[in-house]
Amino acid sequence: METPEEQTPPSDRTEQPGDGDIHPELEWRSERARPGTGDRHIRLVRPHSRYFRRIGPGQLTSTERVLTPRDTMARLGMRVKRILIGAPLASAEEIHERLTKVKALAVFSSDALSSSAYATGEILLQLVAAGVAALTLSLPISLAIAVLLAVVAFSYRQTVRAYPKGGGSYIVARDNLGTRPALVAGASLLTDYILTVAVSISAGVAAVTSAFPELYPYRVILGAAAIAFMVLANLRGIRESGNIFAAPTYLFIFSFGVMIVVGLFKSLVLGVTLPAAPEISPAGTLEPITVALILRAFAAGAVALSGVEAISDGVPAFKPPESKNAATTLVWMAAILGSFFVGLSILAHLYGVSPLSTETVPSQVARAVFDTSWFYYVVQVATALILVLAANTSFADFPRVASFLARDGFLPRQFAFRGDRLAFSTGIIILGSVATVLLIVFRSDVHALIPLYAIGVFLSFTISQSGMVAHWRRLREPGWQQSLVINLIGAMLSGTVLIVVAVVKFPHGAWVVVFLIPLLVLLFTSIERHYRRINQALKPATRDPLVAAPARPMEQPVIVPVPGITKPVLRSLNYARSMSHHVTAVHVTDDMAAGLRLREEWERQIPDVSLVVLESPYRSFLGPMLAYVDAIDQQALGLPVTVIISETVSDRPWEKYLHNQTARQLKEALFNRPNTVVISIPYRIP
Amino acid sequence: METPEEQTPPSDRTEQPGDGDIHPELEWRSERARPGTGDRHIRLVRPHSRYFRRIGPGQLTSTERVLTPRDTMARLGMRVKRILIGAPLASAEEIHERLTKVKALAVFSSDALSSSAYATGEILLQLVAAGVAALTLSLPISLAIAVLLAVVAFSYRQTVRAYPKGGGSYIVARDNLGTRPALVAGASLLTDYILTVAVSISAGVAAVTSAFPELYPYRVILGAAAIAFMVLANLRGIRESGNIFAAPTYLFIFSFGVMIVVGLFKSLVLGVTLPAAPEISPAGTLEPITVALILRAFAAGAVALSGVEAISDGVPAFKPPESKNAATTLVWMAAILGSFFVGLSILAHLYGVSPLSTETVPSQVARAVFDTSWFYYVVQVATALILVLAANTSFADFPRVASFLARDGFLPRQFAFRGDRLAFSTGIIILGSVATVLLIVFRSDVHALIPLYAIGVFLSFTISQSGMVAHWRRLREPGWQQSLVINLIGAMLSGTVLIVVAVVKFPHGAWVVVFLIPLLVLLFTSIERHYRRINQALKPATRDPLVAAPARPMEQPVIVPVPGITKPVLRSLNYARSMSHHVTAVHVTDDMAAGLRLREEWERQIPDVSLVVLESPYRSFLGPMLAYVDAIDQQALGLPVTVIISETVSDRPWEKYLHNQTARQLKEALFNRPNTVVISIPYRIP
Repeated sequence: METPEEQTPPSDRTEQPGDGDIHPELEWRSERARPGTGDRHIRLVRPHSRYFRRIGPGQLTSTERVLTPRDTMARLGMRVKRILIGAPLASAEEIHERLTKVKALAVFSSDALSSSAYATGEILLQLVAAGVAALTLSLPISLAIAVLLAVVAFSYRQTVRAYPKGGGSYIVARDNLGTRPALVAGASLLTDYILTVAVSISAGVAAVTSAFPELYPYRVILGAAAIAFMVLANLRGIRESGNIFAAPTYLFIFSFGVMIVVGLFKSLVLGVTLPAAPEISPAGTLEPITVALILRAFAAGAVALSGVEAISDGVPAFKPPESKNAATTLVWMAAILGSFFVGLSILAHLYGVSPLSTETVPSQVARAVFDTSWFYYVVQVATALILVLAANTSFADFPRVASFLARDGFLPRQFAFRGDRLAFSTGIIILGSVATVLLIVFRSDVHALIPLYAIGVFLSFTISQSGMVAHWRRLREPGWQQSLVINLIGAMLSGTVLIVVAVVKFPHGAWVVVFLIPLLVLLFTSIERHYRRINQALKPATRDPLVAAPARPMEQPVIVPVPGITKPVLRSLNYARSMSHHVTAVHVTDDMAAGLRLREEWERQIPDVSLVVLESPYRSFLGPMLAYVDAIDQQALGLPVTVIISETVSDRPWEKYLHNQTARQLKEALFNRPNTVVISIPYRIP
Repeated sequence: METPEEQTPPSDRTEQPGDGDIHPELEWRSERARPGTGDRHIRLVRPHSRYFRRIGPGQLTSTERVLTPRDTMARLGMRVKRILIGAPLASAEEIHERLTKVKALAVFSSDALSSSAYATGEILLQLVAAGVAALTLSLPISLAIAVLLAVVAFSYRQTVRAYPKGGGSYIVARDNLGTRPALVAGASLLTDYILTVAVSISAGVAAVTSAFPELYPYRVILGAAAIAFMVLANLRGIRESGNIFAAPTYLFIFSFGVMIVVGLFKSLVLGVTLPAAPEISPAGTLEPITVALILRAFAAGAVALSGVEAISDGVPAFKPPESKNAATTLVWMAAILGSFFVGLSILAHLYGVSPLSTETVPSQVARAVFDTSWFYYVVQVATALILVLAANTSFADFPRVASFLARDGFLPRQFAFRGDRLAFSTGIIILGSVATVLLIVFRSDVHALIPLYAIGVFLSFTISQSGMVAHWRRLREPGWQQSLVINLIGAMLSGTVLIVVAVVKFPHGAWVVVFLIPLLVLLFTSIERHYRRINQALKPATRDPLVAAPARPMEQPVIVPVPGITKPVLRSLNYARSMSHHVTAVHVTDDMAAGLRLREEWERQIPDVSLVVLESPYRSFLGPMLAYVDAIDQQALGLPVTVIISETVSDRPWEKYLHNQTARQLKEALFNRPNTVVISIPYRIP
């Protein structure tokens, strides 16, 4: 026989092995709430703590296990998700890599450099309207754009120096110009990132289909697949790792550089030209060479500048001295981009290349220089790769800018939430979806997308540079006058180009962006106004007594709609009576005889709860039920009216269409009713 | 100064003028539930009774006012609905009209008679494959179908006599053959009614486009519009009024009759023929005249019999003696249909009419007989009208059969529910939708739809006649042997035709119906099995104590997820504490520092309620929250775990995307969790 001391207290029997941890936070009987109830034996039934670890009084931290869904289908879904995007990462696992100049050039310049793959072609496409002879004009236009590039790059060097923690247009504008210009910058950045994805992917696919023309009919599907892949990769959370970016970027720099050098050598020294340049004769009469035409060609080529601002965002990623290294890298990037762009324009001129819809200009040049040798394919693959990288930078930038906006309340909170892999999932998915729609609508045609592009680029350049002007004026650090002048020139030039681009491209599609940006700003401000209003409305006034004494316990009126005497009804009634002394069951029927039979049975079987039978001559359930709730509400003297709805839950999804239709309707109707509380008691069908 | 007697009791002051009625059912404080609480002054606050009228103890009936929605948008929706389908009708307002034989012929024969508009054409279309010479075969085939018609009609006279309360195939099969054959009959009837709508509307539109060929390109839109109109009209609830039906039906009988008499006279007596019969040369070689071809033509023409069963369903609508009148009307209907059908075939032969895709055979005959005179247009309009009436009878029949099936548990309950205007809305809408889809898929082409048709017709004939055979054998009333023989012949002949039709039409589309009917039967039985299982599961065992004493009042654990200290949170906490002594607030955060700040503030401001801060290193809200509910559930000793979710309600619909996303997810997750009660407390944003 056991001595009393040896007896285990009954509570301990339910403990799990290894559950030594005592987590008072996991107990449902708060001592404070009900001191000395005598229920202490229940306090000892400890939950096992595999889900939580205690880190202080009233503080628990959860383990990865809490993420495992309980039911099979959801668990399967989670497994698929993990295969696609990987296991979740804790917030503390974030890694911050510091980049050397060589790696940083690779990481930040793909967007800018990649535009040399299509900018020349776009200039030629505009000029060809005035005949093949007009193509010569591409040289001075390219030089003008190169000068513009130099000014903008020089101007951004100032930003890099002033904002060692990263100075994107939105941040610079918010700090120096105020909310409205910051929102304009934000809107133009978001627009621009979407277009970068659509344009870069289209151009990347064009590089592939130039080399393999048999893929041309599949260009939209190829592009959409590339975007889908990038969405997944970014949800998985690719580090902006220098190593991943270095190979394609330097392959591109190397192969494009070789092409330009060899091409110039062959043409100028050996005197080689393209064997038989296909003669393009545009439909109808030739356009005269006008200022408008030249401006159009200039505006088309100006897209080359997109991505130049990337380094200014990413200064903190550089190894120290951050600002100095970033500035050097920026100069290098501008120099490479400028020489590639101008070099390609010269080669296109020398080899007499005309724009074709099925083959890109760089591809024609590369074919002319290398024939269709293996090196030609190297150039095309490198071009396609760097364009994909360029699109990928938007997948890092768009969600980040969106998260800034969301954190400031201008976009829905979801944009600021980081998913399982620390990526801003909402932004990534939105970007991928909108870019895919654009790709499909524009049939993966770079030339059709270009008119929408560049407005956002130059708008954010202008705002950012103007912000820097304000910055220098405000701080007046040593040497501020010189910096101010540089940024002022940058701002004015960007602004002028912005106006030119907007005007000449307006009828060709730019109007979409011109209207879209103000609309986005309007959206941002109304979202912010809404959040502000809500926060104001939800904040308790300081004089409010915070949680009064329990408000009339067991006093609130509780209504239980009942279809008959069933197990779920009994359970609902039991629950109702455990929370209030004032429970009424209500039965709505269009057949009063059946209603009265129910009432008789009810009085015999459930005499404790009063039943009201509501006849509904118009056969509506909702109408009489809501009217009844109204009637009760009028007497409730401010107490909330509670309606208990029991719903059947079944494991077979198709069965749900056979049930709960009235329950669902009633819930929806009551949700919009003030002063009403809805209690949903699911009844699991065995 | 007032004397105490003159003082109004405080409660009376809130009464509305004219609210003399006392409805104890509308009081929320049941005396029985809490006798002698001393709260009697509240009992006297009476709701005004414009919504309800008391009809007995615990019984109220509701007025039409309860149907008026409370919010503006819904009220607007209701107004639009009333304009479209009319004010709601009370169940008691249903009218049962008794029909004379003349009116009954109009009401019940439109479906049957209308098939003469396309049956001949379908025979010719089959025969023309063997060349124009083969068209002569239409005469013997038409005669064979007429004989079949006579047998079936004679057979149905037996049903009419035996089932004075209406003997549709489903009812007859259920009574005499059991559930399975009844379901087969039900499935074939439903299929058939859908096809009747699609075929009749297509044929009606064809009658119109024969007269006005310029409308031919719009035939699908015209047909869809006609169906939409019929859906609305039937939701409004057209009485099957003899007066509405009489005019078009007798116009059709008159004009078709005149056409046949005049046509025969002109051709046989005056020797007129069609001026220049367009020579049809089918693509490729001519088919030889085989038994298969003849059977195909027969099967195509057998659609003429569809609708013959209508009178047997509608016996109770006749004036007494119901059965006798119905039987007489049935004979008349068969005689008219038979003579029209055979007469048209003879005329088509005499005038050398060939089937065309743009003009129907009756239209060609009418043109030949009357030229394109005004009487030609009368014939076409009458044909179109009777075809629309034929489609309309399906809108009465389909919902009725579906409601029988639903009442027996074989279809979702919604099919048995009568809408505002006493019509079975669900059935009407489903029929209209499916028929519209068929119309669009088959481009309103009668010839393409015909192979799907007729199988259902003959399947339900066969089952119904077999049911009658069983009926006579079972009851053995005087003269049963003769009746049995008649029905047996009917059943065998229908069965044979069914097999012929199914075999020859199988490759041309009948396979769809051949597979669809068993699938529908399977669906019916699984729905019934489900409902039976549920009813079994929900029925309380007789030994169950029905509603035990209130189960541990104020004892259940209540969890309140809190995002911070806000007004909705305070309201939820207040509510929680009015129903339980065991309330815990839970705050999930991925930023423990912020969590601890909240905890400090909480202890200062809301010391009565304990707060647990759950850190979520993986940033998930749902995971830790559900794990916490699990932990509490393990200690709840069978009591349900209650989670109170507060949701913000806004009047602006777009704002809802900015809120409640986590609330919605948590609700969904908890809905599938056993033993969990979700309380939703809406907080209206001011």
